[in-house]
Amino acid sequence: MSFDEYHRREFRQVGRRVPRPDGVDKVTGRALYGADMTAPGMLWGAILRSPHAHARIRSIDVSEALKLDGVKAIVTGADFGEVEDESIRDIRDNCMARDKVLYDGHAVAALAASDPRVARKALKLIRVEYEVLPHVTELEDAMKPDAPVVQEGRVQETVPPGMSANVTSYCEFGHGDLEAGFAAADHIVEREFRTAATHQGYIEPHACLAAVTADGKADLWCCTQGQYMVRSVCAAIMGMEASQLRVTASEIGGGFGGKTTVFIEPVALMLSKKAGRPVKIVMSREEVFRATGPTVHSRSRIRIGMTRDGRITAAEARLYYSGGAFPCGTVEMGAQAAFACYDLQAVRSQGWNVLTNRPKEAAYRAPGAPVAIYAVESVVDELCQHFGLDPLEVRLKNAARKGTKSSYGPTFPDIGLVATLEAAKAHPHYAAPLGPNQGRGISCGFWFNFGGNTCVTLNINPDGTVSVTEGNPDIGGSRASISLMAAEELGIPYDRVRTIVADTASLGYNDVTDGSRVTFAVGLATIKAARAAIRVMCERAARIWGIDPEAVEWKDGAAVPAGPNAGKFPPMTLAEIAANSFRTGGPIAGHHEVNADGAGVSFGVHICDVEVDPETGATRVLRYTVFQDAGKAVHPDYVEGQMQGGAAQGIGWALNEEYIYGADGRLQNPGFLDYRVPVASDLPPIEPVILEIPNPGHPYGVRGVGETGIVPPLAAVSNAVSRATGVRMTELPLSPPRVLAAIRRSRATDGA
Amino acid sequence: MSFDEYHRREFRQVGRRVPRPDGVDKVTGRALYGADMTAPGMLWGAILRSPHAHARIRSIDVSEALKLDGVKAIVTGADFGEVEDESIRDIRDNCMARDKVLYDGHAVAALAASDPRVARKALKLIRVEYEVLPHVTELEDAMKPDAPVVQEGRVQETVPPGMSANVTSYCEFGHGDLEAGFAAADHIVEREFRTAATHQGYIEPHACLAAVTADGKADLWCCTQGQYMVRSVCAAIMGMEASQLRVTASEIGGGFGGKTTVFIEPVALMLSKKAGRPVKIVMSREEVFRATGPTVHSRSRIRIGMTRDGRITAAEARLYYSGGAFPCGTVEMGAQAAFACYDLQAVRSQGWNVLTNRPKEAAYRAPGAPVAIYAVESVVDELCQHFGLDPLEVRLKNAARKGTKSSYGPTFPDIGLVATLEAAKAHPHYAAPLGPNQGRGISCGFWFNFGGNTCVTLNINPDGTVSVTEGNPDIGGSRASISLMAAEELGIPYDRVRTIVADTASLGYNDVTDGSRVTFAVGLATIKAARAAIRVMCERAARIWGIDPEAVEWKDGAAVPAGPNAGKFPPMTLAEIAANSFRTGGPIAGHHEVNADGAGVSFGVHICDVEVDPETGATRVLRYTVFQDAGKAVHPDYVEGQMQGGAAQGIGWALNEEYIYGADGRLQNPGFLDYRVPVASDLPPIEPVILEIPNPGHPYGVRGVGETGIVPPLAAVSNAVSRATGVRMTELPLSPPRVLAAIRRSRATDGA
Repeated sequence: MSFDEYHRREFRQVGRRVPRPDGVDKVTGRALYGADMTAPGMLWGAILRSPHAHARIRSIDVSEALKLDGVKAIVTGADFGEVEDESIRDIRDNCMARDKVLYDGHAVAALAASDPRVARKALKLIRVEYEVLPHVTELEDAMKPDAPVVQEGRVQETVPPGMSANVTSYCEFGHGDLEAGFAAADHIVEREFRTAATHQGYIEPHACLAAVTADGKADLWCCTQGQYMVRSVCAAIMGMEASQLRVTASEIGGGFGGKTTVFIEPVALMLSKKAGRPVKIVMSREEVFRATGPTVHSRSRIRIGMTRDGRITAAEARLYYSGGAFPCGTVEMGAQAAFACYDLQAVRSQGWNVLTNRPKEAAYRAPGAPVAIYAVESVVDELCQHFGLDPLEVRLKNAARKGTKSSYGPTFPDIGLVATLEAAKAHPHYAAPLGPNQGRGISCGFWFNFGGNTCVTLNINPDGTVSVTEGNPDIGGSRASISLMAAEELGIPYDRVRTIVADTASLGYNDVTDGSRVTFAVGLATIKAARAAIRVMCERAARIWGIDPEAVEWKDGAAVPAGPNAGKFPPMTLAEIAANSFRTGGPIAGHHEVNADGAGVSFGVHICDVEVDPETGATRVLRYTVFQDAGKAVHPDYVEGQMQGGAAQGIGWALNEEYIYGADGRLQNPGFLDYRVPVASDLPPIEPVILEIPNPGHPYGVRGVGETGIVPPLAAVSNAVSRATGVRMTELPLSPPRVLAAIRRSRATDGA
Repeated sequence: MSFDEYHRREFRQVGRRVPRPDGVDKVTGRALYGADMTAPGMLWGAILRSPHAHARIRSIDVSEALKLDGVKAIVTGADFGEVEDESIRDIRDNCMARDKVLYDGHAVAALAASDPRVARKALKLIRVEYEVLPHVTELEDAMKPDAPVVQEGRVQETVPPGMSANVTSYCEFGHGDLEAGFAAADHIVEREFRTAATHQGYIEPHACLAAVTADGKADLWCCTQGQYMVRSVCAAIMGMEASQLRVTASEIGGGFGGKTTVFIEPVALMLSKKAGRPVKIVMSREEVFRATGPTVHSRSRIRIGMTRDGRITAAEARLYYSGGAFPCGTVEMGAQAAFACYDLQAVRSQGWNVLTNRPKEAAYRAPGAPVAIYAVESVVDELCQHFGLDPLEVRLKNAARKGTKSSYGPTFPDIGLVATLEAAKAHPHYAAPLGPNQGRGISCGFWFNFGGNTCVTLNINPDGTVSVTEGNPDIGGSRASISLMAAEELGIPYDRVRTIVADTASLGYNDVTDGSRVTFAVGLATIKAARAAIRVMCERAARIWGIDPEAVEWKDGAAVPAGPNAGKFPPMTLAEIAANSFRTGGPIAGHHEVNADGAGVSFGVHICDVEVDPETGATRVLRYTVFQDAGKAVHPDYVEGQMQGGAAQGIGWALNEEYIYGADGRLQNPGFLDYRVPVASDLPPIEPVILEIPNPGHPYGVRGVGETGIVPPLAAVSNAVSRATGVRMTELPLSPPRVLAAIRRSRATDGA
């Protein structure tokens, strides 16, 4: 289908802002989250965590704790068996330390007791003898030659020689002649940027209930973005077969990438196995901050050359990411994303991963991209300022478009950046006047979007309603959007369809709810499953009519005789076919299994107005507009919600959020009082502008929308603050003291 | 496949006595039954029941109960809306009385409170004003012209005129010239029989947890033989769409047919809807007896003519069943089954359903058949005695076989009665000597076996294990037998397969676990689903090898290149194909939906030795052997268990079990102390002899086995007691007082 055909296509269900199926449950408190499941005979698990950032575990004495009445089982790293796969081994060792603790909050032991009070009391009776080792929590320090080595033997062959043993991997992307490119520039800006580690800030702490039976089967209930991931990882850690572990995903109180891995689930399983009873573990907020996965913290060096008319001639990025004490590949995504918005002749991005004594990174919305693009978009903004050019015009001039060979390799098909930039340029926000101490920043953003392994089953119920069974936790309204697509394809009203999220035993494997993949990939599989069901329904109608099934078409929710039989019988509705299904062969269903490719990349442009108080350094966001090519917006409310939510989180990242480690290597702010996410009063209304640039890889033109929105805010806010203050900002978050210091430094320089 | 081919087929998995997947959970107390589920904020429901057998409800005053602290909702019949379907309406009215109470224990109101004590206390505060009406609890009384009318206006047109208004339906089956048949007989026996109502005696009382949300969706957890039946019935009663109600079947502590309908589930749903909170209801044992579904109680008149060489010339049955206060169709199955064991030229069976003021009947293993066949087999036995003929020889002479036009219509295909009779005749039990006061009874039995609507999904997990998703609660070991069939078809070991029972939202519609249908129909669908998955796996192997998928075969759990490619590549195992599935197209699954026909009828022959104490009338079963044509025995332990369990329950029915109603119309024995099921010490070892006579309608020759076993014991025991005492017994149960009275009557007659 061509772009024009997409645009002409009339949708009846898709595009409607229908009620959210889980909405009432959530506002009435009836939805069941991770901590809401109980089981008869259940024990409560609790985890003892390291107070040291880096220490060797000499011994763990659990004898006193075991004597406490009500304590039923204690596990340590020694209880977990060998694992072949390195990435699974890292997850295992992150869930429970073995020889060394690698960060403040690293789990060293866990126990299960008859009630939470007993469990907490028993934790205090476990004696751990540590040999405290020198630690390093900051990336710059970790890269020094004499830095304490966080983990030995983790350096990959790709890393150029001569670096600290904490630099574990290296990657490089790009093309063209950099030297010639920079030589052709009228001006080159090269700057260094720093970003702090941030947390996804989901409302719901991790919680799970594990029940291992005496014959080695297990059930696990948990809040996760991917029950199949939990199954694979936990089964591997426990040495079980996947089919013996049934994982059910609870409702999820936010994840944003932070629930794409496991932290407490293998511990609960091991405790349950040892105790022979179900075990529940619920993390405290402090545990969430100290021992789940924040983002990387980063340092980067960006160098861009531009002609005076705004053409970028060469661009180079050096990215250093630290995802904590375990090797991580996020920097690779950052290096790929850094220049994806631009059509460049000469470009190179390099990435290095660095170990520090911090918790193991987890994904956070478009992982790796925000900090890379923040730095790039800051330098582009500075170049625009230098030449006095309009920042949207410059981006339009250099924008990636159809046929652009991207900085990370692939040549782009139809993409929407130019349309998005033009929409931003035409929006009243961009022309609105600004007052004193106010500034306007813009930034582009990019995310790949993924497809991935997906299974959908669609059942036509005997009463003519439809049940769609999918395997991805609903984190952004996907139950509604999947139902809309099923209803669209089947030609029936939305409220006749109910989509549910299956457990791992009830449906085939599905990749995690991440990469903005669900509406695209599960939608695709749902449409295909609906088409399979339509084929069966046409056959059933043909059987009733006594005609060839080939001579039946599906139209407006009914089978219609076609070809030579056209008009011979009245249309037979889905409900009629369903009511007759038992006498025409049995229940009717459609199924589809696929590793979906064809997910379309997505671009966003954000405009941000701020006012900075020159006396305090405090920044107030005055106005914020998000433009994003969403592909077909299946449920515009949720698309807008994703755009607004991404912007809100990005604003928090830009202005306030950061992990603060003390000299003792311990996290200083493990709670929402000291780790400050933006609350409603911190934010202006965020206006979302959806651009429906269809993805040719999806029958309805759907792209992913969940992640792109968090990419531009870091630079949009920073560029706005830079323009409001007249000082180029290069470090996040732009907390009042930091902004004030920058202003004062600048005044001092000006005065000198 | 011919019989011979079946017999030659070598199975690798099917036929193994593998461990039961739910066995450990059940013996360790970890399996979750109906009462084991809880939800946050859950209330406890309790039901107020009528102390009258028949009364008009003048008023229900709930005001005092509502005032009690902790009471959150009260419902009565007035809360339930109109329902179109008559059978659903009857279920609704059985769950909660409307204008009249129709039996002792009939629900009149229900409430939900914060804890069970408050709930019980509040029940006592509900004031119901009854207008007590004359009642009738015995079938004979109900048939009298002046009997109290249990329900007005329920008489079907088929009922011959001139009968009591409590006779609601009539049916008739048979063929041939009865008059000529009887004229050709050398001797005719005509006798009347009575059987008492019995209960299935499942260990687990009904229990459920219902949660209706403010927007009308609902989740229901309950112990049931059919979660889809629960969904259909409850959705209809609640006026919901099926897709809005998600029903999960718990483990089930016995059902035997008694959990093929609902009693408390709509009440819990209505309470939850009204209270806005989840509501749990758990029946007491007394409630189970008073207000769930026992069997019919019956009266029958049998007339059979025989030649002196043992040929039956004509047979006639008049069956009167009462299934309590609501019309029921069980007598139709009894009338069809009555003479199914015989090849008859002239046969007629007639059935009448009669209303009484008793609880609405529910199914119990082969519903309707045991009491009909009990009467027929008693008369056949008496005729054998009369002519001095061997009772097995006589049955062999008259046995239904391939080509027999059955008494209920269909002509039999390959069936196993003759082989079963011959096995019984050849068994040492039949020739073993008997002592004084001992007798040996034999009886044939028959059950139709069903197929029905069935959906199965089979997923090949990435680690090469297999998950089978089926929708029928496992009441007899079906998880194991389904896994065996999947493993057989896929060519992998049993322990690589895990079968789970899905909830109604995760899989398409499945008929109830009844009619001995599961191993047959779910097995069939599993085999077909496995074959579909094999097709996909062959395609994936072909893709990896770069050859035509048609040129790949499945053999011994692996794809093998065939035809021109034979030997070109080594076999690729299921695990290898699974491990590569993500890069060859995505997850691999097979699915099958079918309304299965082809279930093979099944016959049994039981031999029973008893000793009767002439002083007390007490009967002791000395030896018991069960012969049954099971088709292919997928898991012989479970087949034997079904045969033994059916016999044990039938022995209880024959000897002890009965509902006893007082003159006040109230049940006198609502508990296991006074309603006496046989315990282990009451029973001899029951020897099962499986005859694997394959069913041509199933790929592995599987027949149903669950129900046939309860059909013969009633007559086998009664015939044994008749022969031990020399007195023809015609009424069940053969409790000591009844047997003693019969002996004394007989002595008195002899003496007279």
